[in-house]
Amino acid sequence: MDTSKIFQHGTLGLLVPGLYDGTITAGELLKHGDTGIGTLDGLNGEVIILDGQAYQAREDGQVRQISATETLPFASVHFEAAQAGTPVSDLGQAAFQQQVQADNQLTNVFAAIRVDGSFKRVKTRVAPHQTKPYQTLVAATATQPEFEGTDVKGTIIGYFAPHLFQGATVGGFHLHFLSADHQLGGHLLDFEIDQAQLKVQKFADFQVHLPIDNADYLQEQFDNETIDSAINKAER
Amino acid sequence: MDTSKIFQHGTLGLLVPGLYDGTITAGELLKHGDTGIGTLDGLNGEVIILDGQAYQAREDGQVRQISATETLPFASVHFEAAQAGTPVSDLGQAAFQQQVQADNQLTNVFAAIRVDGSFKRVKTRVAPHQTKPYQTLVAATATQPEFEGTDVKGTIIGYFAPHLFQGATVGGFHLHFLSADHQLGGHLLDFEIDQAQLKVQKFADFQVHLPIDNADYLQEQFDNETIDSAINKAER
Repeated sequence: MDTSKIFQHGTLGLLVPGLYDGTITAGELLKHGDTGIGTLDGLNGEVIILDGQAYQAREDGQVRQISATETLPFASVHFEAAQAGTPVSDLGQAAFQQQVQADNQLTNVFAAIRVDGSFKRVKTRVAPHQTKPYQTLVAATATQPEFEGTDVKGTIIGYFAPHLFQGATVGGFHLHFLSADHQLGGHLLDFEIDQAQLKVQKFADFQVHLPIDNADYLQEQFDNETIDSAINKAER
Repeated sequence: MDTSKIFQHGTLGLLVPGLYDGTITAGELLKHGDTGIGTLDGLNGEVIILDGQAYQAREDGQVRQISATETLPFASVHFEAAQAGTPVSDLGQAAFQQQVQADNQLTNVFAAIRVDGSFKRVKTRVAPHQTKPYQTLVAATATQPEFEGTDVKGTIIGYFAPHLFQGATVGGFHLHFLSADHQLGGHLLDFEIDQAQLKVQKFADFQVHLPIDNADYLQEQFDNETIDSAINKAER
């Protein structure tokens, strides 16, 4: 169990023109990590993986467990290293991210970010399930359901990546949320921590696994500037 | 021995502002592959790794073996898979690259490119050894020795990478050369194949290993546009 590596299936870039077909099973993905984030086949919601179990936050607001045979076009996972948490309190998202990046000197380093505790406010969005012919990521996420909670217990899980890797993944922070009662989940748009424990796990290695047997992937003509711009619109 | 993965130490991006200090030993690097390319501590020449042995093409035109304790700031390696070669003949660099990319549908796939045989012409350049304070990559390679040979037997080794990974590595082809008699080596600027055998090894996985304990790396403020432009100037 290698706790110094992120394993990522697919790239954020391949979602941009609309390559939403699942190309890895959840069962195979979980061989490479017990914790992480992603999306399901058809851009169907937001995936949160905690303690070896994968959950889907759906566009109708429900949260359900994902079975081993379901597939994903994009996901990042890692094996969690044992570590003590650091207390954090009374922090909004922007201040939290600035503090975590600075305190841990993350700018050029991959890291997993996990926060367990109580939140004064949480606001998420969930990508709506797409059917073929697929729209681009910017079009698919132009209107999407948002969910809010106040005084919520739960977990933030996600990653920080160096900006050099924008396109391969999201440069900077990419965070998802799952409430302890599984009533609220999704891609984090905003939050305010009440009292929580923070764990930052740095990685020396970032491994990208590409769907090199998928005909749509092989044929796509990607454009780096379009991808950069779309990630800044759709994933922040 | 995993033949489906490229292991890369460092990024091409970190060379751009001049982070030339070696951060992995050749001995450690060779645990992750028996074949590959790179550069030595201080941007000292061009590294060619064939059949488990690492060589340095020096700016004075000499080629020497690298010992296990020497260090590198950047290198890509893989374990070579057994495969039959495909004959190629009478091809210049541009036509060769176009044909290899198209025939193997490489555009969005990482691959190793190896060509063993006879060459009508080979032209290489070798990065000149830098001392601190380091100049940027563009400044350091503005004037560099070039070497030419005609009717040369030898080996091209290098990689094709999807353009999405420009910055992390060189998007497109990045090829080095070593002659069979070890009298000519370096980063390939031009060549014309006479008769040779081509091997293309595709990879599902690209693993980047970052020097996350190196203070200069942690503190550098990288800029993606500067890196993209510098790679296009210095590495093609």
